[in-house]
Formats: sequence, C-alpha cells, structure tokens
Amino acid sequence: MNLKEIGEFGFIDRIAARTVPGSGVALGIGDDAAAIIPVPGLQTLITTDMLVEGVHFELSFTTPSELGRKSLAVNLSDIAAMGGKPRFALLSLAVPPGLPLEFLDAFIGGFISRAERYGVALIGGDTCASRSGFVVSVTLIGEQRPDRVVRRSGARPGDRVYVTGTLGDAALGLELLRRGERDGAAVNRHLDPLPRTEAGLALAEARVPTAMIDVSDGLLADLGHILRQSGFGAAVFLDRLPLSPEYLNRICDLFDDRFALALSGGEDYELLFTSPADREEEVLALFNSPALPVALIGEITSAPGLALIAPDGVPYTPKYRGFDHFS
Amino acid sequence: MNLKEIGEFGFIDRIAARTVPGSGVALGIGDDAAAIIPVPGLQTLITTDMLVEGVHFELSFTTPSELGRKSLAVNLSDIAAMGGKPRFALLSLAVPPGLPLEFLDAFIGGFISRAERYGVALIGGDTCASRSGFVVSVTLIGEQRPDRVVRRSGARPGDRVYVTGTLGDAALGLELLRRGERDGAAVNRHLDPLPRTEAGLALAEARVPTAMIDVSDGLLADLGHILRQSGFGAAVFLDRLPLSPEYLNRICDLFDDRFALALSGGEDYELLFTSPADREEEVLALFNSPALPVALIGEITSAPGLALIAPDGVPYTPKYRGFDHFS
Repeated sequence: MNLKEIGEFGFIDRIAARTVPGSGVALGIGDDAAAIIPVPGLQTLITTDMLVEGVHFELSFTTPSELGRKSLAVNLSDIAAMGGKPRFALLSLAVPPGLPLEFLDAFIGGFISRAERYGVALIGGDTCASRSGFVVSVTLIGEQRPDRVVRRSGARPGDRVYVTGTLGDAALGLELLRRGERDGAAVNRHLDPLPRTEAGLALAEARVPTAMIDVSDGLLADLGHILRQSGFGAAVFLDRLPLSPEYLNRICDLFDDRFALALSGGEDYELLFTSPADREEEVLALFNSPALPVALIGEITSAPGLALIAPDGVPYTPKYRGFDHFS
Repeated sequence: MNLKEIGEFGFIDRIAARTVPGSGVALGIGDDAAAIIPVPGLQTLITTDMLVEGVHFELSFTTPSELGRKSLAVNLSDIAAMGGKPRFALLSLAVPPGLPLEFLDAFIGGFISRAERYGVALIGGDTCASRSGFVVSVTLIGEQRPDRVVRRSGARPGDRVYVTGTLGDAALGLELLRRGERDGAAVNRHLDPLPRTEAGLALAEARVPTAMIDVSDGLLADLGHILRQSGFGAAVFLDRLPLSPEYLNRICDLFDDRFALALSGGEDYELLFTSPADREEEVLALFNSPALPVALIGEITSAPGLALIAPDGVPYTPKYRGFDHFS
C-alpha cells in the first residue's frame, strides 16, 4: 500500500487512529482547528521548529523512527528551557513523491512514542505534497505558572552558569556519521536526542534559574543569547566544560582544538541556565541522579562580553562560532 | 544587503522590530518559546498550514507580499470555520540560498499587514535554510467560548446548507495564471484570498451553524467532511451555487462542465455551514451587507451520500473530485 492509494485524508485518518484522547483536548485531529482547554492560572507556552531534508537531516543517516522522535524532541527541548510542562503537539509534513508509506508509518510511530513518553497529545497538523525534500514542522504547546516561566533575560552579575549533561557529543556524532560511522554514543546523541523535560520542570518548580536556554546552536551562541538579552557578560572556564569519555577519546583526531565542538557544535539539547551563587547547593541537590549530571562552568559578570578562560588560566579565543543557518 | 550578511539572528531581529506588542502576549519573539495568557473560560483553537513552493505556490505567479498575506489568510480561514477569534501567529520559513532579503522583507510585510488587519500578534516561529524550495509553515491560535465553537460534526437532517461568497473563482484564477493571464478578479482570488473572519465570528456568536468548514479542497470534498463527520447525507442544487460574473463569463471556454471548478476547484476560502430550517431568516439577516452574500445551496438528508441535482432537476454526476495532495 502506498500514500497515493490511501490519499491525504486516508493518511490523516491513519495517524488519528494511532492517537489517544488527551486530557485537556476538547477537539483533536480532524476539524479545521484543534481546541484545547487551558488550565486556569497557567500561561500557554508555544514553540515551533521546522526540520528540512538535506539541512537538518539526511535520510541516508537516520531511520524514520529516529527522525520522528527527534522532530518532537527538539521542540520538547524548547519547552523544557522555559521550565514548562509539554501538553499538545501539531505535526505538519511535506512529503516527496515516492516516500513509502512504511517510512511515514515508522516516522509517526517514533513521533508518537516520544509524545506518549512525555505526556504530549497529538492534536492536529497538516499534510501536503513536496516537490523536493521531506519537510517536518512541529508546533508544541506547554504550560506553566507565570511566576515559574524562565526567560533568557534574567541573568544577573554574580550568578553561576550551569549546563546539564555533556557538550559536543551530538556534533561529534554528526562528524562521525559524515565519516561513515553508524553507531556509538555520540552518533546516537545526534540522531536521537533526549530532551531535558524533567530537569527543566524541576528547576522551574524550585525557582532556581534566573535565565535558561537550550543548547541547540552551540554553547557560545546560546550563552550569547542569554548575555545579550540579560545585558551582562560572563566568564566561562574551559576546564569545567562537561565532556564525555567518547568526546575526549575522539576529538583530538578530528579537530586541532579539543573544545571546538563543545563550544560551537550545537544540537546538544542540554539546558544552560544561570542561578544566584547562594543557591548552588540547591542546584546540585536537584541533579542528585547520576543519569543527568550538572556542571558549574562559569559566572555572569557586569563587564560585557564572554570571556573564555583556558585550563592554564589565560584568555582563550575560539576558532569556531555557533551555528547560523544563513552564514 | 543579503540574508548571509545579516545572519539568522539578524533576520529574526529584523522581523521582531516590525511587530508590536499584542494584548495577551506575555513573551513574544526571541525566547525558546512564546508565552500567552489565556482568557478565562475560553477554549484555545490551534491550526497550522504549510505552503510549499511548486505545490501551493509558484514564485513566477505571486508577489512576495501576496504570498505573505495568503500564508496567514489560509490559517485565518480555518479559525473562521471554527467560529473563533484569531489572536496569535507563529511563522516558520525554510529559505533557499539566493532568495533576496528584499523578497523576505516584502513577504513579512504582507504577512504582518494581514495580521494587523485581523488583530493577530506575531509571537514566534523558526527560520532555517532550505536546499530546495521556499517553505512557509504558519501556526495560528484563536479563541472562543466552548458553547460557540463550531465543529464539522453537528449537521442534522433538515438543516439547510449555506455557503458564503462565490465558488470556483480561485481555481479559475489559477487556471488563468497557468494560461498566462496576470490580473483580474479570479486571478486575485487565487493569489490574495480574503478570510471570512468576521462572518465566522458573527455566525458563531449568533449560534446559527450546526456545522461549519472552510472550502479549501473544493465544495464536494469539504461538504463530504461535514457529511462523514455528522453521519448524514445532503442534496445540493447546482442552480443555487453562487457563481461570479467572471466565472460565468470564462468557465465555458475552459471546461466542458460549467460546475467543475465551483464543485471541485478548491481554495475558495469561503465558509460552508449548516443551520436548522427555522433559522433561515436569521442567517440571511447576518449577511445583510452586499459585500459578502450567502447562498442556500441545499439540505442535509437522513439518507447517506451527496445527491447533486442539475438545473433540469435530474441527478448529476460530477466529472472532477476535490483536491487530494497524494492522489
């Protein structure tokens, strides 16, 4: 069976049949719009991300199920960075002729498995033909109390700078994929990232972060957003960057600068946040599970700009910058 | 100046500078997610539509400003079909290399002009590169009281079937564009549709419609959605279909069936709705402005299926079906 046989509306029915009614959903897939019931007192958080074949993913590298999972994960990461609880998703697909129905079924399966794992209901979307590559656009809706929503703009001088997990693995994985490798922890970090949903929510509920962002364009670029929007600078100590064993093992063969991918690689989908110095113990207590470490990597400064300090204590100039789609 | 010079974040700043803070917006463009403040007691309506170059539009036919306006209009039409009030939009763009910044500026200008016209605040989105065509994905958020939201599923036998405006003009316009024409009312209907936002809201506030949908895939396909989801059939009288002077003037030279595009053309973005027979006067009173006529075209029947009745009173079999992206 192929997409042409079942048609656009048959395909939509096929997706709808795999979804379960979510709480708070007044009207799901199948009308002109979905309808949701907001929880009184909560703000609605909305984010959207588009993934384009040949730009964000290569079908030769990734399985359809991985791509489905990642399409939701990158949006979950944005809601996590606001300290929000994810609730509802819309999924739009532009499908090139010849993409088999089995591919789409596996993609939807991956998407829905991540949705169920994180308590998200798929409530709508759009499907259309594409004359060129496969394009995925996801809109994710979350919620949080107004006094718990964490912006990028709240960092203050003296705040500590933290990052969850490890940096640079996803970019390392992409580099290894391009060189022909097909498995390993770093490759998996690129193909199938896990959003930090629970950590973002726990931080917000404890009102620990003054500012937060997810690391999608690389630490330098994303810390840059916090600094610009907060109006201050920062000092970051390179010997404190959390690097995985695989990263440390492989980076020197690939780059002349072992911090290159940790600083500028992107797609880490870790949480980067700032918090007052006197709350350090609370921050560490929130991350007492060994599954997700947190690293204190620097400090917000009243002096503008981002000062990187090399392990030998001298200022360090990065060779690479963060990802920009148009540069 | 080009996109490469200003970069992804420069482009986002450029868009943000053209937006004004909207009421109900806690956090607009520039964070990991936008935050909105729901109005107590209202449901949140959400729709999303993707427009793909070469499938939904041809850059040789359309100006960037028209495309920006249409990208929002097709989503406004979906919220109108729910009887909702549009409030907030997210705009995602996949931009091919070489698309000039002037094109994007004009596109954004068109989008924002429609947003302002309909009281919509642009609160977020995504921008990325495209290896192939220009892709636009819009998510539109509206609101309405739960007892005013109009679904597709509420049509009952004896209900009258109405449609606003005229049918077939947009499809005629597309046909004329393909034959080299570049202006006229029908061409304009295809390139720059006007959503029936005020009519949809007025109908919902008066609690007139039992079911409603916007005509985007053609009357047959979209009435078919109402019939399938309501579980009934309908009879439609072809001599009651609202056809414009330009349509009547041009259709016979193009098609051997003068109802072809009115029944199956699509992209009309008119409202198709059903309402109890005893509320006919109320319906007509709501459309007392000559700018937007309404036509009573048929009736819901307990017998399943859609019966089309030709002007001579005999059953009619359409030669064309509605639009399906994969057929």
